Amino acid sequence: MEKIVTIIDVWGVFVFSISGALNAMSKKLDPFGVFIIAFITSVGGGTLRDVLMGRTVFWMEDHMYIYIISAGTIVSIILRKKITYLMKTLSLFDTLGLAIFTVIGIEVGLKYDLSPSVAIALGAMTGSFGGVIRDISLNEIPLIFQKEIYATASIAGGLIYMLGLEIGLEKPIVELVAIAFIIVVRLIVVKYELQLPSFYDKEEVEKEV
Amino acid sequence: MEKIVTIIDVWGVFVFSISGALNAMSKKLDPFGVFIIAFITSVGGGTLRDVLMGRTVFWMEDHMYIYIISAGTIVSIILRKKITYLMKTLSLFDTLGLAIFTVIGIEVGLKYDLSPSVAIALGAMTGSFGGVIRDISLNEIPLIFQKEIYATASIAGGLIYMLGLEIGLEKPIVELVAIAFIIVVRLIVVKYELQLPSFYDKEEVEKEV
Amino acid sequence: MEKIVTIIDVWGVFVFSISGALNAMSKKLDPFGVFIIAFITSVGGGTLRDVLMGRTVFWMEDHMYIYIISAGTIVSIILRKKITYLMKTLSLFDTLGLAIFTVIGIEVGLKYDLSPSVAIALGAMTGSFGGVIRDISLNEIPLIFQKEIYATASIAGGLIYMLGLEIGLEKPIVELVAIAFIIVVRLIVVKYELQLPSFYDKEEVEKEV
Repeated sequence: MEKIVTIIDVWGVFVFSISGALNAMSKKLDPFGVFIIAFITSVGGGTLRDVLMGRTVFWMEDHMYIYIISAGTIVSIILRKKITYLMKTLSLFDTLGLAIFTVIGIEVGLKYDLSPSVAIALGAMTGSFGGVIRDISLNEIPLIFQKEIYATASIAGGLIYMLGLEIGLEKPIVELVAIAFIIVVRLIVVKYELQLPSFYDKEEVEKEV
Repeated sequence: MEKIVTIIDVWGVFVFSISGALNAMSKKLDPFGVFIIAFITSVGGGTLRDVLMGRTVFWMEDHMYIYIISAGTIVSIILRKKITYLMKTLSLFDTLGLAIFTVIGIEVGLKYDLSPSVAIALGAMTGSFGGVIRDISLNEIPLIFQKEIYATASIAGGLIYMLGLEIGLEKPIVELVAIAFIIVVRLIVVKYELQLPSFYDKEEVEKEV
Repeated sequence: MEKIVTIIDVWGVFVFSISGALNAMSKKLDPFGVFIIAFITSVGGGTLRDVLMGRTVFWMEDHMYIYIISAGTIVSIILRKKITYLMKTLSLFDTLGLAIFTVIGIEVGLKYDLSPSVAIALGAMTGSFGGVIRDISLNEIPLIFQKEIYATASIAGGLIYMLGLEIGLEKPIVELVAIAFIIVVRLIVVKYELQLPSFYDKEEVEKEV
């Protein structure tokens, strides 16, 4: 079980570092900048979670993460030419990372005996705040504040996770169900371009534009 | 006494979440984004204070805050149509939040036996950094770095607070005096459009424009 | 030895606060904003380091820093007229700060028994993240992510430091060698306008422009 968590953790860091590096390269950052943005994107959410919880930040005690992020950065640099072609893949990587990190964040919260609702919030933070910090660093309004059901998918996945535990499913099953649920929600959202219901009238939107 | 602190705390979070939500809606964020910006604005300053002090972040141990912020967000969404009309009210809410959070921040500092000057700095941070983090998240240069006497009013209120304690006033009195002082300073500043004395010459300013 | 560290620490905070204040004034911030940006620039990197390590943030327990930053801000305001003339000096102050803070960050890491590679990372963070937080606050993409060998010089200096310890040099010697190395690398980089090798083709760059 521990092993499964480690595997999905490594995978999550890897895919998020690729997502971050591709974003950074689309802004023409230098190699160091690309690495830092890959780093921020992949461990930023978990770092914020650990800082808020007063835990030792997870990547300071384990070299593995630096190596994985370096590997993700190098892979991204090699593949950068196909970047427009890869936008769909990038979105998929992002979805995988979101799903995996949500589950990791929830489990950290539960391990520290926090309430289910706080654990769900920590899951959403771990899953989506790396991207928020990345967007702020690249001088953009965070994408997830503006459109598409993103953190909302993570929160829904967290509810599924708690439900699964409640009805007595085993942990690895619950993990896989929650991860699959978040991925499916995101795929549907992207395919049908769903958004949270807007409460702005047409008038209001046009007035701004 | 504890009760008074709780009441002003609830009120501060409520008014700041409205201030944040109105700001987010003026940028046409989606409902999730509006909630997050309300959250950042209302608890961001206190979160930074707690992280820097190495305390457990205050809203992680108390569900109340999430409910208050949700309420503030919903109220804001309902009232959004009157947003231009409400700009003055928004400014008033902001002033109330600033005054209340300054006092809370100071008292947290004193409770941990920090020196008066550090406590005043923590008060100013608690009162004004939620707005700073909000502005950075919305991709703007923080308003309070540019004009109007805002954090400066908070610092002046902190000095009044310490003076009040020094001359032996009771704590609830000192709290009310400091809060009233900050509110009055801000109202005067806004009414007469006061600013900190500028040290830029006309030439310098024009050169830029 | 302690004394040397204190001296270079004071000097680093002073020069970085000047660097921050000059930056803030080029954006026409008000006096309070200038002070805050000077504060963020000079202690931001070390604050992030301490927060990630779970240490008490260094400037909360020592009044000295506030005084030094105030002094740096006042000096900057007095000298602001010569700001264009001073751009080269500003760059030199920045270089000094980078070198000094790198060494301080490394030594904090080693003191807490972290591995050499994590200590080097903490050194680079202490040296360069004040500027990153400053740029994000002023609504710019952090300069060091884009061009010039900056954090990379800090990391190279960290390797020199570890090498020096390894071959048995005394600590004050190692400190001076690492500081001198970083300064020389930066001076060469600025003089010859060196950059990290770009992996973007001409085409790619032009496409963007």
